[in-house]
Amino acid sequence: MSAVLPDAAKEWFDGANFATISTIEPDGRPQASMVWVGRDGDDVLVSTTRQRRKAANMGRDSRVSLLMANPEDPYSYIEIRGTASVIPDPTSSLINELSNKYIGKDYPWDPPDAERVIIRISADKVVFNASG
Amino acid sequence: MSAVLPDAAKEWFDGANFATISTIEPDGRPQASMVWVGRDGDDVLVSTTRQRRKAANMGRDSRVSLLMANPEDPYSYIEIRGTASVIPDPTSSLINELSNKYIGKDYPWDPPDAERVIIRISADKVVFNASG
Repeated sequence: MSAVLPDAAKEWFDGANFATISTIEPDGRPQASMVWVGRDGDDVLVSTTRQRRKAANMGRDSRVSLLMANPEDPYSYIEIRGTASVIPDPTSSLINELSNKYIGKDYPWDPPDAERVIIRISADKVVFNASG
Repeated sequence: MSAVLPDAAKEWFDGANFATISTIEPDGRPQASMVWVGRDGDDVLVSTTRQRRKAANMGRDSRVSLLMANPEDPYSYIEIRGTASVIPDPTSSLINELSNKYIGKDYPWDPPDAERVIIRISADKVVFNASG
């Protein structure tokens, strides 16, 4: 049963804003990295490669947390506790879509052997929170 | 054996910048929230209350990840994988110090029964990373 994203948060995800994604290491530790994000309905989309630690982590344990601040007010932010699906993206469709959103051109930095994947995050729970 | 913070990252922590702290829920899921941060040498300091989920999480599993972006360049960020100590702060010393840094006055929002604690994070590993 998926949770719904508030409309305000959808706007944050539709802009060229950054999120932090947290995954679980093999030993149970948290691991976090900053990512570009896209959106498909209430799912959040992240691009990474098979070679990256977070892809391996999500392949083993699909439970993730994704946090994004209101780009105009860091005291307002959304945490999505969700389940990640790792989907092959052999044409690099998502990374190029995101790259155009964030830097205005196709993604120029992948090595030839990069195996792009789409991380589709379905929200199990959505939390709005304040710092302090 | 603690890791050392790079000087550049120390400057980020000394400014009024926000970080994301990730902890582990009882069921092994990641949980993330945005926090104010301070620094004592190579340790990062965060204030929270006993009542908050992240304090309970760190009391049970001290392994955390703390991520902060370069305030001038979100493509540059530091991830600190560390161990958190939870220390009572009955005089609210840290939250007031941080509050003065971020909003220019003592922290005005704690309810009377707030039990402030200092989260002292010692870095086990430091990662500089780029998005994509």
